[in-house]
Order: sequence, then structure tokens, then C-alpha cells
Amino acid sequence: MAADKIQDPSRSVGVVTPQVARFAAPLALRCGASLRDYELVYETYGTLNADRSNAVLVCHALNASHHVAGHYADDPANTGWWDNMIGPGKPLDTRRFFVIGVNNIGGCHGSTGPLSINPDTGRVWGGEFPVVTVEDWVDAQARLADHLGIQQFAAVMGGSLGAMQALAWSARYPQRLRHSIVIACAPNLSAQNIAFNEVARQAIITDPDFNDGNYRALNTAPKRGLRVARMVGHITYLSDDEMANKFGRQLKNGKPGYTFDTEFQIESYLRHQGNKFADYFDANTYLRITKALDYFDPALEHGGDLAKALQSVVAGMLVVSFTTDWRFSPERSREIVHALIKNRAPVTYAEIDAPHGHDAFLLDDARYHRLVAAYFERVHGEIAR
Amino acid sequence: MAADKIQDPSRSVGVVTPQVARFAAPLALRCGASLRDYELVYETYGTLNADRSNAVLVCHALNASHHVAGHYADDPANTGWWDNMIGPGKPLDTRRFFVIGVNNIGGCHGSTGPLSINPDTGRVWGGEFPVVTVEDWVDAQARLADHLGIQQFAAVMGGSLGAMQALAWSARYPQRLRHSIVIACAPNLSAQNIAFNEVARQAIITDPDFNDGNYRALNTAPKRGLRVARMVGHITYLSDDEMANKFGRQLKNGKPGYTFDTEFQIESYLRHQGNKFADYFDANTYLRITKALDYFDPALEHGGDLAKALQSVVAGMLVVSFTTDWRFSPERSREIVHALIKNRAPVTYAEIDAPHGHDAFLLDDARYHRLVAAYFERVHGEIAR
Repeated sequence: MAADKIQDPSRSVGVVTPQVARFAAPLALRCGASLRDYELVYETYGTLNADRSNAVLVCHALNASHHVAGHYADDPANTGWWDNMIGPGKPLDTRRFFVIGVNNIGGCHGSTGPLSINPDTGRVWGGEFPVVTVEDWVDAQARLADHLGIQQFAAVMGGSLGAMQALAWSARYPQRLRHSIVIACAPNLSAQNIAFNEVARQAIITDPDFNDGNYRALNTAPKRGLRVARMVGHITYLSDDEMANKFGRQLKNGKPGYTFDTEFQIESYLRHQGNKFADYFDANTYLRITKALDYFDPALEHGGDLAKALQSVVAGMLVVSFTTDWRFSPERSREIVHALIKNRAPVTYAEIDAPHGHDAFLLDDARYHRLVAAYFERVHGEIAR
Repeated sequence: MAADKIQDPSRSVGVVTPQVARFAAPLALRCGASLRDYELVYETYGTLNADRSNAVLVCHALNASHHVAGHYADDPANTGWWDNMIGPGKPLDTRRFFVIGVNNIGGCHGSTGPLSINPDTGRVWGGEFPVVTVEDWVDAQARLADHLGIQQFAAVMGGSLGAMQALAWSARYPQRLRHSIVIACAPNLSAQNIAFNEVARQAIITDPDFNDGNYRALNTAPKRGLRVARMVGHITYLSDDEMANKFGRQLKNGKPGYTFDTEFQIESYLRHQGNKFADYFDANTYLRITKALDYFDPALEHGGDLAKALQSVVAGMLVVSFTTDWRFSPERSREIVHALIKNRAPVTYAEIDAPHGHDAFLLDDARYHRLVAAYFERVHGEIAR
């Protein structure tokens, strides 16, 4: 992705600064627990217009954060995770829209989560932090909208787990968004998806440094487990073809060494990804985010009927999938589309022929970006009326 | 697979007894090391005919062994791993054929491997046992054939990694087999296949109980790592559809508990598979078997030209793949078939429409078994002439 990082300063939102919103009212969670109070870290790009109609909420997926676009003054290399999508002249054009990125509760990038202090004990939450769900995140985000004085978003948008939030928004707060942009999504996880998550969790939980999640207090971290978890996750983000193209069977030293050292380039790549991730990400957050994925299933409370679960939806829906995504295949996106069509809800669906697998939603694919740009052109037309 | 285990005694080879063959001559391995001497544990079913032309060698895959069919007198529940394929009246009919199952070197079921004593040190090999390859296994098996007085096999047969051995046999000892039966195979591992193996290896190697593979001497075992390794492997053996059919999103307690206990049935299944495996399998063997898979690539020494690598093949080839196998997809089997066709080698190819994924090669699928039965009918016709 190095090429995507080369920036045209005129198309960047430039230097950004995270902000913190504090919420004093308790947040009731699906698991039955409630957070007495909480903080959300967020960033904004662009300017909120006078009638507050041009706000777009961008929801993050597994390992990302509120840092969606731009860079920090003291860390210019730390570019936002969706910087290719958001900025002046980009598909989500910050000359027109006021864009908000927010770190979800349970996260490890500043919002209240396992690394925060539990106000009831005065100690780091660690393994005691409750299980959070997509719906909990959406509820917390709705309060952030209140805090920012935004009654209705022009759009809520996300890819993968972020798309699940966009989908949940459309059903849970139908009046509070004009459009929902649901990219590389699924209406719930398949058994195989859950299985991969469970492998990741078991790798973390059985790491002797995990200590029931209370590793911080002991000054340790289950890095070995987190590393394996990231490696297995990473395999599911790339298509088989993309891995073949990028790495194939290339040997690191040109010929087999018959040792347990890194032999193939793909091993080297995965180990690198695993190490990098284990150094910056919190294991308790990773566990909770995989559980949020597992639990997401809007149809469950409606006898498995997704159309019923989405009956409240009035937003314009854009659903996008990628042909080589085997984690959340186009077939899964079509389940969402069919449910919306059954409800006669306004839905646009695009299946993008892209080689990159699930990760395609993060990449600068011309057809994909043109599609999103065109959709936002339409959204802009509506709010400018 | 419980249903497959219900046996008709008249179609079972009955009580079997493993045997041991000792080889005093050193075995040179691909990695450059050589085994000073070695033992192979094997089983045989049926009777070798007078002209020694009816022997069939069955090669095992990742976690299996020489115990291919029948059961042990003192352990009647311990049925051979391919018992549905081999026995009187079964596709590989032991009334006609003399069948041999052998545990490969580097294994943990009795043949010389990491659990054996290194004659040079008098201590358990452990992590010092060399890296072994498919070709090394085939060379060791060829010596077993010598030992049993078998100049030419009626067939060499295997599924998955076992099929790689059958394929290597056909190219390496072309005169020593009439037929090669290559089921659910690939001519080499894809980057994605290697990636999954690498995750498994890293889970084992980073387990604090691994101790560079010398855990036996310390009376420990990297069971946590082996458990995760097996869980990730298991996901690749089943098709997405099969997992969906078997487990779907079934909750263990009917409704979400929002805890890190087992929540979905698929989690329970995977944990069970992982625990079972970690209790009986040796981690050093697992590491070596995954490396043997990674290294297998007959085309490598021929500039990537598989047809050239298979130029020596004279055996009749039966290649079988399964539609839902995403580990070694039909496309990969077709690479083998195309190379053989290019060489004008005699090849029969069947793509079986089966829902079970890679594991299909182990299951009692009627069309699959009829095909193998028909092929052995033909082999029998040849040797009976």
C-alpha cells in the first residue's frame, strides 16, 4: 500500500487534531452492563454548513481508529486510514462535506476501553471491560452527533465492520441519516468467519501473558497471541490471487534452506504484519472487536428475517462489494440488497471487479472511487437544494 | 464423521497389527542431513499374490499414520483413517489387493522422528530432527517396498499430502508403480496455503513451552500452540458451505451470552478438535509436515515447468478433485492434469461435486467411491492378465 501513501498535499485535509468528547450519562450496553460515563476521541475534516446538513460519519473497522484522513503535525507519516477516500477533490470531498471519524468504545486509540480506568475501581479496566456490540457503538456515536449538534447525517459510511455500523445506523436511527454507505459488508458472520475469529481469540487468551486480560497491571502483554491473531486475520483480508501475485512461492533467499527460518516471502510479510500489530494494538480491544463482529446479526431478533430487521430503513442505501472478497463475499452483500428491495427501500448496489479481496475497500481502485464520488455528488445535490 | 465409523464387520479388514521395518543404510535427505538408520512402522491388509503384482501403497496426509484400515485387538474403536475406502468389497478391495500403510519418517506414530532417540547423542531428537520432504518420504517408502520384495506397486495412492507422495512416486520411481492415484492434490502450495501453515508454525514456535523443540526433555509440550495450529488447519479442511450447514450461527445456549465463553457451536467444535489433536500429536512432527507441504514443488527444479517435472511418468494416473475444496481447488488438480496431457501421459481426471471441502477425500461419498472402485477394477484387470 506504499503507493497509496504518496500524497498530493492539495488533495489532503492536511494537519488534523484529535478531539475528545465526554459523556456523563451512562451508556446501557447490549450485554446488560452499562458504562457510567465515557469518552470518545474523534477527528473532523471540512466545515459543518449553516444548516448542519453536510456531516458524514465514517465508522472504522477492526484495527482502525478515528484517524481517518490527514496527518498529525508531530507525525507526518501517520496518515489517516482512509485518506485516499477523504479530502479535497476526493470521493468524499471535504470541500463539500464535514467528515467525522470516531474511535469506538472498547477501542485502544483513546476512547473509553480496556486501557481506560474503571471509575468503580480506580484501576485499569483490562479484562473486566464489558463486551461491546455494533449497536452499542452506534448508540455512542448518536450521542456524539447530539454533542456536535448534528440532527441528521448526510451519510454514515463504513467498510467491513464499519459497514455493519452504517447498516445498523440505517435501521436503528432511520431519521438521523439521509444515506448509508455499506461497503464490503455482510448481514452477519458465517460459521467460517466466526471460526477465524475464534482462532484469533484462542491464540490471545491462551497466551500465558494474557492473565485474564489483566496483563497491563502485571506489565506484560500477550504479544505472541496477538501476533498470531493478526497473521490469521490478515490471510482473510487478501484474496488468494492477490497473495499469489504479490508473493507466490518466492523464496526469500532464492532457494530452499530447509530450516524453520523465514523461507518464503509470504512468511516474512505475515510475520512483519503480526509484529507490527502486536506492538501497537491492545489484545483486550481485539477480543472485543472480534466478538462485536460475531454478535452482529440484525435479523436475529426478527426470526432470522433480514427484511424485517431493515423495515425501518428510510435512508438511501449504497451497497458495494468486491468480486474477490472471500471474507464477506458479494453473495453476502446481495442478502442485504435483497432484503432492502423486498422492503422497497431505495438501494444502489455495485459489485466491483477488483483483485484485492476484502482489503479492496481500503484501496484506491478507480472504478470503486468513481462510484463513491458519483454517489456523494448525488448526496451533495440533495443537501444543496 | 461418526456415521462413517459404523462398520459392517464383513467389509472390514478386521484386527490388524502394526509391524516395524529397520533400515541400517543411511537415508540421505534433501536438506543435506542424513538419517544414519531408521525404522518405519507399517500395516498390511490382504495378501500379496504369487507374482507380487497386487500391492498398493497408501500414503498418509498431515495427521494420519500407517493405521489406514481395520482396528486393533486391544482398541476396537481405533479404526484406520481410510477404513471406508479399504477392505473386502470396498473401493480398494483387500480380497484382490495387498495394501500397505506406512507412517512417514518425521512422524509421531512410531516411525523414526522427533520422538525417537538420535543415535549420535543418545537423546531424543526433538527440535534437532532434520526437515523432511515428500521426496525423502518416497525414498524411504521405496526401501520399504524393497524390504517387502515388491518391485512394482499396482498403485500408489493418497489424498492431499498423501497425493503429493503418489505424484512424486510417479515421477521419481516411474518403473515401480503401474498406477498413481492422486486425490485432492496440488502441484505445490499457493501463497495462501503457505500462509496458513506459517500461522500454525508460529503458534507452535512462539508457545513458551516449545523450547526450540526440546520440550520432551523438559517434560513439557507446546499444547496451546498445537491447539491453535489445529484449529486454523481445520478451517481449511471444511468448505464454507459445509460449516454453514453443520454449524451456521447456532448458539450453544440458544441466545447470546455476551461473554468469552463458548458462544457459537462452531467455536465449541473447533476447541474440541484443537484439544483432541494437542493431546495426541507431536508438535515437532506437525512443524515438519507443514514444511514438507510448503517445499513440495516438483516443477521448481525444471524452471517451473510441471510437464517437464512429470516427463518421466509412465504410470496410469487418476487425478480426483472436489468442487468445494478451497484448500487444494480443482483448478490446482487441473494443473497436474494439463501437465500430464502435455506429456501425452495416460491420465483420468474426475472433479467430484461434493459439499465437504478438502475433507471430502476422507468421506464416504458414493460417486467418489464408485469412481475409485471402477479404477481399481481396471487395475485388477491388468494385473490379473
